[in-house]
Amino acid sequence: MNSSTSLEGLPAGFRAAATRCGIRRSKSRLDLALLCAEEAFPLAAVYTRSHLLGAHVPVCREKLAATGGRARAILVNSGNANCSTGEQGLEDNRRIAAAAAELIGCGPDEVLFLSTGVIGERLPVDNVLNALPTLCGAGAQQGLDAFAQAILTTDLVPKVSRRTAGDSQVLGIAKGSGMIHPDMATMFGFLLTDAELGDDPLARLRAVNQRSFQRLTIDGDTSPNDTVVLWGSGRSGAADLEGALTSAARSLSRKIAVDGEGATRLVTVEVRGATDEEAAAQAARVVATSPLVKTAVHGRDPNWGRILAAAARAGVPMDVDRARVWIGEANLYSDGQPHPDAEPEAHLHLLQHKEVRLGVDLGVGGGEAEAWTCDFSADYVRINADYRS
Amino acid sequence: MNSSTSLEGLPAGFRAAATRCGIRRSKSRLDLALLCAEEAFPLAAVYTRSHLLGAHVPVCREKLAATGGRARAILVNSGNANCSTGEQGLEDNRRIAAAAAELIGCGPDEVLFLSTGVIGERLPVDNVLNALPTLCGAGAQQGLDAFAQAILTTDLVPKVSRRTAGDSQVLGIAKGSGMIHPDMATMFGFLLTDAELGDDPLARLRAVNQRSFQRLTIDGDTSPNDTVVLWGSGRSGAADLEGALTSAARSLSRKIAVDGEGATRLVTVEVRGATDEEAAAQAARVVATSPLVKTAVHGRDPNWGRILAAAARAGVPMDVDRARVWIGEANLYSDGQPHPDAEPEAHLHLLQHKEVRLGVDLGVGGGEAEAWTCDFSADYVRINADYRS
Repeated sequence: MNSSTSLEGLPAGFRAAATRCGIRRSKSRLDLALLCAEEAFPLAAVYTRSHLLGAHVPVCREKLAATGGRARAILVNSGNANCSTGEQGLEDNRRIAAAAAELIGCGPDEVLFLSTGVIGERLPVDNVLNALPTLCGAGAQQGLDAFAQAILTTDLVPKVSRRTAGDSQVLGIAKGSGMIHPDMATMFGFLLTDAELGDDPLARLRAVNQRSFQRLTIDGDTSPNDTVVLWGSGRSGAADLEGALTSAARSLSRKIAVDGEGATRLVTVEVRGATDEEAAAQAARVVATSPLVKTAVHGRDPNWGRILAAAARAGVPMDVDRARVWIGEANLYSDGQPHPDAEPEAHLHLLQHKEVRLGVDLGVGGGEAEAWTCDFSADYVRINADYRS
Repeated sequence: MNSSTSLEGLPAGFRAAATRCGIRRSKSRLDLALLCAEEAFPLAAVYTRSHLLGAHVPVCREKLAATGGRARAILVNSGNANCSTGEQGLEDNRRIAAAAAELIGCGPDEVLFLSTGVIGERLPVDNVLNALPTLCGAGAQQGLDAFAQAILTTDLVPKVSRRTAGDSQVLGIAKGSGMIHPDMATMFGFLLTDAELGDDPLARLRAVNQRSFQRLTIDGDTSPNDTVVLWGSGRSGAADLEGALTSAARSLSRKIAVDGEGATRLVTVEVRGATDEEAAAQAARVVATSPLVKTAVHGRDPNWGRILAAAARAGVPMDVDRARVWIGEANLYSDGQPHPDAEPEAHLHLLQHKEVRLGVDLGVGGGEAEAWTCDFSADYVRINADYRS
């Protein structure tokens, strides 16, 4: 394979496939997926910061330490998170990955097996084992579309982003329903490239993650299985990847934000005038997490007070007498005073656009950052209160 | 006055009154209230940590610095927060307090004037000034009940707690609607005692506040006007006050939690097994703020996974393999494993009690703390999305 993009739309050196193993009740839903590389390529991963970890997190860490950060394949199931399953869960993860490795023809440490779905139930191990020969062979559905579909849980749509960096391709695939479900372990991001990853892929991934998935917030909750992977075949040689990777990951983050149940708006929170970028990101996350801000957007209410109050409690430096608040093009507050005349214009932004841009200038420096979220509807409460009934 | 409690139910040395000045639209609602002391007694105050401050916060700070921590009277209006009103707001606050001081016969720095209500609108200064002679004279409604009623905004019920410490009385009065409103600046606590406050009233108040109002969370938002006051006449002499003050303040915190619109349950989150009390309090606050935990309680869903996941992301040490989660008397999770058999019993606690006790043992030490919140209903979203329409 010497073109930079395979027939299936993946960067050179990778292929994708999916099948049905029967974890999901629906007979038509794919629930077992595979990303496979031509050989063991460099791979870095970052995981949830929660103390509660799905079984795959410690096992993936061990394997990447053993291989020195290389992998031949990533196996993913949806519908069951293999989380809060104790020693049995770790064993199940290792056993299934080893069986896949044998079929692929590589060492067991070179196959990572990621799970997402319901927490607290054991994986149906025999079902998964029985489906592996199909998945790893010609009988599976081949290609990116099948993979992106099979990893979904309550997501409404598959999430894929593409970028280029010189002659190199970056492909991003994500899942995440836009909110962390009651018993669901939710967010995965896969960043694949045919470029070389360079000396320190993990540092590179951390920098990208910091400016993308770390700025996505739905309800402030964090899942025990969240995992983001960067994997490079090197087939297209060296490239300046940072911009393309960050852009692809930010695009995926926004796709996750807008795909929440009950969500009717993508909300981008812009913070400027912070002491530095990290302070701006912190304030943006707090505004984006505020239920009062999110319900105001849902109610199409140009409520500068909630935006200002959320930024003001973010724990970062701010000068409220020099601060500014806007919605879309309308300035609602500046120099310590509200501008009631601007509210009708701000109201129009909220009514007319599927994406709402809210902004705060903290008035103390040059740091800027964005965060993404969705609005907060009564449907969110209904879905999350009634989930088990 | 030599009994420890006055006829009006206040600790010796204090009286209370209220009247109507016309800030609230309703003709029957009291909206201007007074706590008046026989002389300038020691007083300490703590305020919101937000950068956005109601006008009364900097003015009260100045005055308490000038008097060395003494006050003769506290004036309170409801319906208007005098927040985001710039220099004009500071001037209005000082002018009204000075007029009250003249009527009471004390120095202007000895009268603190607190505001709560809508943000971003100027106080109707003339209305307030015109009502002061009535408020400070015999024509006002006298007593605790009138005061406790007049300071309310969207609260459904007045909030009063009484405790004793030896021969001394502690009276707590609070307002707070159980959530921070769109344009509302919300929480006040007044702790009055006839005991002496001792050498460092502010340190005493901070310690009490840390174990009471700081452990109350509704939606994670913080109002720009939040103020808690400790004021002692010393009429009953010295007393060991800490237990009575903390108990009164915790009782008020719980009354605030249960009085939120849309709230159907008081939720007490118990955290044990933390490295220390502050770590336990931090985990308890995170669990109590989680929309997923709060919607689960609303839906009567014994969802240990959401409780565990919230504690696990609180940023404090935890050993999930030794952790335990309970609802009421039912143990739902321990030693890294869920106990599905216990769910029906936990479900009964959620269905049958107006107060739900959720608990997590972090499994790493002996630190314990509680936090209080309410459940999260679709009504919360409706109220906060539709507030202005």
